Amino acid sequence: MVSIKDITMPKKFVQLLVFNFTLTEIVLSGNVLIWPTDGSHWLNIKIILEELIQRNHDVTVLASSATLFIKSNPDSPVHFEVIPVSYKKSNIDSLIEHMIMLWIDHRPTPLTLWTFYKELGKLLDTFFRINIQICDGVLNNPKLMARLQKGGYDVLVADPVTICGDLVALKLGIPFMYTLRFSPASTVERHCGKIPAPASYVPAALSELTDQMTFGERVKNTISYSLQDYIFQSYWGEWNSYYSEVLGRPTTLCETMGKAEIWLIRTYWDFEFPRPYLPNFEFVGGLHCKPAKPLPKEMEEFVQSSGEDGVVVFSLGSMVKNLTEEKANLIASALAQIPQKVLWRYNGKKPATLGANTRLYDWLPQNDLLGHPKAKAFITHGGTNGIYEAIYHGVPLVGVPMFADQPDNIAHMKAKGTAVEVNINTMTSADLLNALRTVINDPSYKENAMRLSRIHHDQPVKPLDRAVFWIEFVMRHKGAKHLRPAAHDLTWFQYHSLDVIGFLLACAATVIFLVTKCFLFSFRKLGKTGNKKKSE
Amino acid sequence: MVSIKDITMPKKFVQLLVFNFTLTEIVLSGNVLIWPTDGSHWLNIKIILEELIQRNHDVTVLASSATLFIKSNPDSPVHFEVIPVSYKKSNIDSLIEHMIMLWIDHRPTPLTLWTFYKELGKLLDTFFRINIQICDGVLNNPKLMARLQKGGYDVLVADPVTICGDLVALKLGIPFMYTLRFSPASTVERHCGKIPAPASYVPAALSELTDQMTFGERVKNTISYSLQDYIFQSYWGEWNSYYSEVLGRPTTLCETMGKAEIWLIRTYWDFEFPRPYLPNFEFVGGLHCKPAKPLPKEMEEFVQSSGEDGVVVFSLGSMVKNLTEEKANLIASALAQIPQKVLWRYNGKKPATLGANTRLYDWLPQNDLLGHPKAKAFITHGGTNGIYEAIYHGVPLVGVPMFADQPDNIAHMKAKGTAVEVNINTMTSADLLNALRTVINDPSYKENAMRLSRIHHDQPVKPLDRAVFWIEFVMRHKGAKHLRPAAHDLTWFQYHSLDVIGFLLACAATVIFLVTKCFLFSFRKLGKTGNKKKSE
Repeated sequence: MVSIKDITMPKKFVQLLVFNFTLTEIVLSGNVLIWPTDGSHWLNIKIILEELIQRNHDVTVLASSATLFIKSNPDSPVHFEVIPVSYKKSNIDSLIEHMIMLWIDHRPTPLTLWTFYKELGKLLDTFFRINIQICDGVLNNPKLMARLQKGGYDVLVADPVTICGDLVALKLGIPFMYTLRFSPASTVERHCGKIPAPASYVPAALSELTDQMTFGERVKNTISYSLQDYIFQSYWGEWNSYYSEVLGRPTTLCETMGKAEIWLIRTYWDFEFPRPYLPNFEFVGGLHCKPAKPLPKEMEEFVQSSGEDGVVVFSLGSMVKNLTEEKANLIASALAQIPQKVLWRYNGKKPATLGANTRLYDWLPQNDLLGHPKAKAFITHGGTNGIYEAIYHGVPLVGVPMFADQPDNIAHMKAKGTAVEVNINTMTSADLLNALRTVINDPSYKENAMRLSRIHHDQPVKPLDRAVFWIEFVMRHKGAKHLRPAAHDLTWFQYHSLDVIGFLLACAATVIFLVTKCFLFSFRKLGKTGNKKKSE
Repeated sequence: MVSIKDITMPKKFVQLLVFNFTLTEIVLSGNVLIWPTDGSHWLNIKIILEELIQRNHDVTVLASSATLFIKSNPDSPVHFEVIPVSYKKSNIDSLIEHMIMLWIDHRPTPLTLWTFYKELGKLLDTFFRINIQICDGVLNNPKLMARLQKGGYDVLVADPVTICGDLVALKLGIPFMYTLRFSPASTVERHCGKIPAPASYVPAALSELTDQMTFGERVKNTISYSLQDYIFQSYWGEWNSYYSEVLGRPTTLCETMGKAEIWLIRTYWDFEFPRPYLPNFEFVGGLHCKPAKPLPKEMEEFVQSSGEDGVVVFSLGSMVKNLTEEKANLIASALAQIPQKVLWRYNGKKPATLGANTRLYDWLPQNDLLGHPKAKAFITHGGTNGIYEAIYHGVPLVGVPMFADQPDNIAHMKAKGTAVEVNINTMTSADLLNALRTVINDPSYKENAMRLSRIHHDQPVKPLDRAVFWIEFVMRHKGAKHLRPAAHDLTWFQYHSLDVIGFLLACAATVIFLVTKCFLFSFRKLGKTGNKKKSE
């Protein structure tokens, strides 16, 4: 048996030896610093920090003074550190509007790829100006930094969509890890995380492609990756200077991001197409999902009144403001024609065409509704959180995607056979009606949704437990260096073995050259001897 | 809540709905067919089938009539189906001898790479002739096949080092999965399993390289991969015809292997260098490891008599016959010079130089000794099973590798800082003595061994549980298609996007051609106008 003195560990983590030698490690209490991103990202990371609190850890959230959803709750033991910034919530709202308009005006098709990525570049510029304020608000804020230094954190968990979390961790001298849904065309995961992504069957995020591509689609995918890389290279330029300045040595954003101990990716193989990854990537999609709770009495009565037909749940998510009156009427008149009862999350003016089967709500207990046995379909904008609640409960989807990863998410669900898509801009009442009838009446959609649900539920460890396991692992071991691929130590041409290939080609050329020379020399000598013999 | 009727599953697998919607799946009893490989491979897979039996599954082993280690135990509920073959145990012995001689004569160095792989090719030929008898013994044996058909198996678990398990599964119409330590240069995993392996940082198996390579080593690695691919392509040729004939359509060995639902790889990131993999690869190294049991009384007394100095455990594994008298004396005299007590598994003549501190045993309870608090070092041939017991218990190693993956395994442990290697052919007494003193007295070896041990023990789920989970998963879902990468549907030039690159280059060439033409045309026109003007 190994004695306890052989084991070196942070003192506050107690390691017990149970039966001869089965190590059971109990983290008494860790100290976690969270670097979140606002919006739906926060809704997801909040679940992780609630679980950390449950497991007796201290949690501090580091967030800007202008946030949409991130706020402290006086009843919660989560501590908040506020980063002073001069931009306003209205700037964030306009950024989101800019993002929605990008998709409405330039949704990526083969013909609009270039404009789409060019506009995305502009969006990144706006984002940069907001993000740099957050960075400065911490890194150039000696009082806040001193407080953080004193905090004695064991790990920083960052959503890297808001840049600089890694820098803060390096400045504090603590390990950091990421929680990430995706980066456009997986540029960050590929370049900074070093996961391979063969363009032949790994669709670029945002491309709306699947893993089964025609030749034309593979061309589009290859171009998507290249354009994306190009856009990011220019975006990163500004960050590279900032990172070098802060760390006082020439470095890049990507090199710094590559130091993340673990990447918690917010999808899983129920949603994702199988693709290569690395051991420091953990796919924890759906970690926020949980069994349905009973509905409020009034709502339960309405749901029960649907009888055999069941209900349709309809929400366009937390980020989208109300629809135009025309659009709302068009939707309401489609909903009025189905036998199901409809629960619609909608804050706008009551549409004139609203049917007796449809009720409007300011807010819906979405997960409890989707987990209700009467849920027949879910009309959704296709945010990852909502998609995962539908996967968890096995509910077919009508996708009305708007921006960011939403069109891509719906493309995934269409490929898996659980969704029909309607275009928010061009749809007619009949389009929505047909889509709803299809997913409700064609049994393949329910079957596929149940298949995904079974896959989701049949994992060796639940996603939330895996996410928290790796956070605790990084705290226990002060990192997860044994999972870090050596690819990080190579330049791009070494990584692709271009120097080796060049060398081998040079060797081959030399051999060919020497053989040819020898051959020519012998030939000439032979020729001379021949001539001599002839002349003799 | 989803009703039980929505869930389609093999009838004998009961699925329970606990709390609103947390699926807990209980496999009442599955029926597993095992296609093993003999030798140390069997020792590993035996642990899996014992666990399957524990979990109430029926297990049948399909093995040839000439086996070394694989045998039925009248006390065990494991059923055996015997494949009649005409070769004898002595043929297997000679194959192993051939393998040992290959490494002794041609152990791969930059200068011997070509001869090594050429000789490996010859070895594969011998192996082919033995293996084909096993295949014929099942597939051309209507009585046995009929019995297997009647068996109603849910899954076949194959060690693909013995080829044809997959064919048997396809003929029986059941899903199959692999348990594999490695294939030379990962040829099978790369070509048939589709895992990417960048030659720049993923060392080819058998190359004895690590993930930190100099330029020269990267050249060696690239050549190792290429030579290996070349050797395997010729070896596979014969199998491709066999597979096509059996399945009655043109196919290849590799295409058929690619249908494996899950690849259980018998290593983990404590031993392996981090590398890309796919979601249907599960790294379950060390699944056979368990806490140490008390030693036999005489042995415990001998171990305790070592006092503070502790003991050294010495075994060259189950596959190696005794040493020459000279070699045994050389080893014994080195062992006589250390203050530790030594337990040596050795069946040969007692060496004249044997010290009072060394005892010979016909067999050792290796795991119990390595798990004993007095174990200071382990002298090992470097088989994966033994290496994992040392990792599990945190014991430093002196590696005396002989053949197959042993030199490579020791190279891994050297890179992780837990082993010193001595060359069995060229070593002197002093070499062995120095190696032993180093791993025992330099504390870094123990520290690194304990670090690996902590990594091994700190997993979300134990390797054996994960292995069995995925076997049960394949039984519950009749496969694991959601983990199968679309790379399997592509030809090699599609996989590498060569058609897309060709097309884009052709497009670029056309554009350049047209632009040049236009430019030349305008230039000429301009020239003519100029001349006209001049002449005017």
